[in-house]
Amino acid sequence: MTVDVVILTMSAGTIHVLLVRRGEAPFQGMWAIPGGFKRPTETLDEAAKRELVEETGVDAASLLTQFGAYGDPERDPRMNVVTVGYLAVLRDVGAIEAGTDAADASLVPVSDVLKGTIDLAFDHLRIVRDALERVRVELEVSGIATAFVGATFTLAELRAVYEAIWGVQLDAANFRRSIVAENGWVIPTGRRARPGPAGGRPAELYRAGRAWSYGGPIHRLQRTAERT
Amino acid sequence: MTVDVVILTMSAGTIHVLLVRRGEAPFQGMWAIPGGFKRPTETLDEAAKRELVEETGVDAASLLTQFGAYGDPERDPRMNVVTVGYLAVLRDVGAIEAGTDAADASLVPVSDVLKGTIDLAFDHLRIVRDALERVRVELEVSGIATAFVGATFTLAELRAVYEAIWGVQLDAANFRRSIVAENGWVIPTGRRARPGPAGGRPAELYRAGRAWSYGGPIHRLQRTAERT
Repeated sequence: MTVDVVILTMSAGTIHVLLVRRGEAPFQGMWAIPGGFKRPTETLDEAAKRELVEETGVDAASLLTQFGAYGDPERDPRMNVVTVGYLAVLRDVGAIEAGTDAADASLVPVSDVLKGTIDLAFDHLRIVRDALERVRVELEVSGIATAFVGATFTLAELRAVYEAIWGVQLDAANFRRSIVAENGWVIPTGRRARPGPAGGRPAELYRAGRAWSYGGPIHRLQRTAERT
Repeated sequence: MTVDVVILTMSAGTIHVLLVRRGEAPFQGMWAIPGGFKRPTETLDEAAKRELVEETGVDAASLLTQFGAYGDPERDPRMNVVTVGYLAVLRDVGAIEAGTDAADASLVPVSDVLKGTIDLAFDHLRIVRDALERVRVELEVSGIATAFVGATFTLAELRAVYEAIWGVQLDAANFRRSIVAENGWVIPTGRRARPGPAGGRPAELYRAGRAWSYGGPIHRLQRTAERT
C-alpha cells in the first residue's frame, strides 16, 4: 500500500508539477511523483504528508486531498501494490530539497510530462492526468483558480490559470464580465498592480471571495424550512 | 486491501442503503456494507463489482465510482487493512440475494443507520456518511437527482429526492421555477402521471435532460479560440 502525491503550482505562467528522480529500483533514475509506502501506524493522510516532506522538503500541510486509488495488477513490477493519489495546489512550494530515496526533486512544466518529453515511472502519467482532470472540473465549480495566484491578483493573472489548465484562450472582456457578474466571487481591493514595462493604466488588484461557488440549478441554501 | 460498496436507492420516498449481515468474524452477525478483499489479479473496480454481486446479487455494472480510501490503523481489528469506498445510485436494485460470506442482505432506510438504530461493522458508518455527503454535493452541481427517480418523473418526485438527501423541505413553487429556469435540465414529455387517489389534475411527466450541469462563474465551453 503506497501513497503518491501530485503537487501543482503556477510558475512563469505555466503549470508545473513537482517530480522526484528515483534513487532506487524499480525505475531507478526515472522521474516520478513523490510517494512511498504507508506505515502500519499512520493514516493515509499522514503517509502522504510525510512522504512529500521526506522526498522533496515541501510541506503541503492540510491542503492534500485524495482524488483516486489505483490498483491495476500490473501497475508495479515488484508486487501487487495499490496506491492512493493525493493532490494539492500550492501558491508557493517553498524550498525544494531531495531526500530519502529521491536522488533529485524539481518543478517541471506539466506539459513536458503530458507530451512525453519526460517519462514517468509506474502509472504516474495516468495519475498526473487524473489529478489535472480533477482540477479542470474543480475550476468549473469552485474557486480553486485563486489557489494558483497570489493573495492579491489581477484578472489577467486569474485568466491565465484558466487558460493554462483548460488549454484554451479566453476573451479578456468576456472573462472580466463573467467573473465580476458572479457577485462576491472575487473582491476588489481598491489597489492597483505596479505598471508593467509597457506603461499604461495599472490593472486592478482583487482577492479571493468565497472559496466555493457551486452552481447547479438548485442550491442547498435554498431552503424554506428545516425538517424538524 | 479491501473494497466496500455503498448502494443508494429511493424506496417509499426515503433513501435506502444496501446492507449485508456478516456471516463471519470479525463483527459476525452485524450489518455492514458489502465488500471484501481485492484479489491480486483484478483491478479495484473489478473487485467492487464482484464483491457486490457475490454478497447481494446486485449488479451495479459501470455505475460504481470511487469516492475515498480509508486507512486509519485501527479501522480493522484483524490487521492493517486499507479499503477503497465505491458508490452507486441505482433506480432499481433488482432482486437481492445474499451469498458467500453474507448471511443476509437487505435495503435499510439510511436514516436508521445515521441515527444508530442499526450499528454497522468496522468504520462503515463513516463510509456511508462520506458517500451521502458526496451525493449531497453532487446534487448541487449535477443531475444525479434524476438517478433516484424513474425514466419519467413528476417534479414532486424529483423534489422528494432533494428533500430526502438534504434533509430539508423545499417550497414546491420555488422548486418548479428553479428547475424549469435551468433550460434543458429536465425535459417535458408532454404526458401526465396517472391521477392520485385524491383526484385533481395529474402532474406533468419529465425526463432527465443533460446529465451534468456545472455552474461555476466560468464554464469550460466558454471558449473564444482553441489554443493551437
